[in-house]
Amino acid sequence: MQRVAILGTGLIGASVGLALKASEFQGEILGWDANPAELAEALRLGAIDEALPSRESVLAPQLAEVYLLATPVMAVMDWMQALAPVIGEGQLLTDVGSTKREIAALAQTLYNGKGRAAFLPGHPMAGKESGGAALADAKLFAGATWLFTPLHDDPSPLETEWRALVTGFGAHVRDLDPERHDELCAWVSHLPQMLATALSALLQDTFASDPEGLAALQVIGGRALRESTRLGASPYSMWRDVALTNTEPIADTLLALEQRLAHLRENLRTPELRDEFAKANRFRSRQ
Amino acid sequence: MQRVAILGTGLIGASVGLALKASEFQGEILGWDANPAELAEALRLGAIDEALPSRESVLAPQLAEVYLLATPVMAVMDWMQALAPVIGEGQLLTDVGSTKREIAALAQTLYNGKGRAAFLPGHPMAGKESGGAALADAKLFAGATWLFTPLHDDPSPLETEWRALVTGFGAHVRDLDPERHDELCAWVSHLPQMLATALSALLQDTFASDPEGLAALQVIGGRALRESTRLGASPYSMWRDVALTNTEPIADTLLALEQRLAHLRENLRTPELRDEFAKANRFRSRQ
Repeated sequence: MQRVAILGTGLIGASVGLALKASEFQGEILGWDANPAELAEALRLGAIDEALPSRESVLAPQLAEVYLLATPVMAVMDWMQALAPVIGEGQLLTDVGSTKREIAALAQTLYNGKGRAAFLPGHPMAGKESGGAALADAKLFAGATWLFTPLHDDPSPLETEWRALVTGFGAHVRDLDPERHDELCAWVSHLPQMLATALSALLQDTFASDPEGLAALQVIGGRALRESTRLGASPYSMWRDVALTNTEPIADTLLALEQRLAHLRENLRTPELRDEFAKANRFRSRQ
Repeated sequence: MQRVAILGTGLIGASVGLALKASEFQGEILGWDANPAELAEALRLGAIDEALPSRESVLAPQLAEVYLLATPVMAVMDWMQALAPVIGEGQLLTDVGSTKREIAALAQTLYNGKGRAAFLPGHPMAGKESGGAALADAKLFAGATWLFTPLHDDPSPLETEWRALVTGFGAHVRDLDPERHDELCAWVSHLPQMLATALSALLQDTFASDPEGLAALQVIGGRALRESTRLGASPYSMWRDVALTNTEPIADTLLALEQRLAHLRENLRTPELRDEFAKANRFRSRQ
């Protein structure tokens, strides 16, 4: 592995660059981002060695042995389409997209066959409150889980090498089936996000005409309010793609929660409330 | 103010005792708790000077100038009823109950008249993950908001003295109307609690028959899952009383959130999702 190309040098892409620099990797890191400011910041931080000048230059043959797609999911799939004709055997594409079912399905049609480049779908469970290369951190993945949803059982040498580098970042690597990945992430990540968005938007509308109440919320709202709405700050640009590529599992978890909230609402004055608290206590005691 | 009686020496009651000891208050602190272990722990920590021997001994005339009711809301109202016949002018009752409308209404009928003791409803916005005297902390209220919902405009000298002590704990004192208090707390505290309970109970049921999935949740679930379910550990004993004494505002906020979640679910693939994220971003930017 002589050259790695990082496509998307925001928080995750630039952090991977810094983590590679801090690792045993001795090769060159090329970077590209649709946003020139993010690309310049990644270069300034030393997360990449060279900023590619254009989208076209990314598509040059033999640009790198490993391409890391570190963009929102729809752009990951766009790059997969664009790169398929220009890369081949002995090259590896891997990504950090939030959903894996559609990416894995597309990879089955475009990659991993004879004469084709390998594709290893990945998803580091790491991030920060806000995005952007400026917040990049070589230690972002230390202690975090880095999921892969491999498409076959015999990894190529480059896949094995990439997994070893990720382990060297301090991440715990774990393999999952792509569908299972998306169902579990709907519960642990997408549902909490949609919940925080819905609650924050509801509060925004409810208190839009009550500035005194809004001011009071800020004074009396403590950790509970802060935690329940923290993810309300998340960017639409990333979550639009998650919603588009994992619609059914997210809708299923939302409907289940709506029904559960209605049940709780109808039982605020009955012993059923005790059973709900007991179940919740049991879940938490295992976390 | 020579003597303060703290009824309920759990986390909040014992923390008030420790905060009083660390303050200018030079008098004696008496304590009572229905749970002998909590009472003994509060005495051991020095949060109280003397453990009252029985419920009956609390009802002795002239036991103290100030009584702090630091129990769940229904027990606060039980003590208000029990103490009304034995205390009178020159004595002050105050509480730390989570809801204020029903407590304030009861206080109007039992206290604050000629020849009667004064009642000042209070609610410190402070706490910890778990309760109990063992976690008591003299600094628990430093920087926190301590709400009062006073029933009249001319505070008694004891009320003024109590407010000054609370300010001395490092708390920011703020007055609210009792109904407004309960409506705002439904949004910032009770709704987030019911949400965390419903989500935790739902996860408990969903993964009860899928131990492998539950184990995976624990591995891949990061901060989002942790924050969304943290309050799932809260005790039913306290929240039962909140639900009983603030049913309508809680039900209103729950119904509004159910409708908002349904709206979001129906718009996972439409531009309406962008508007919801924009509103949520706007709310968060003000927090």
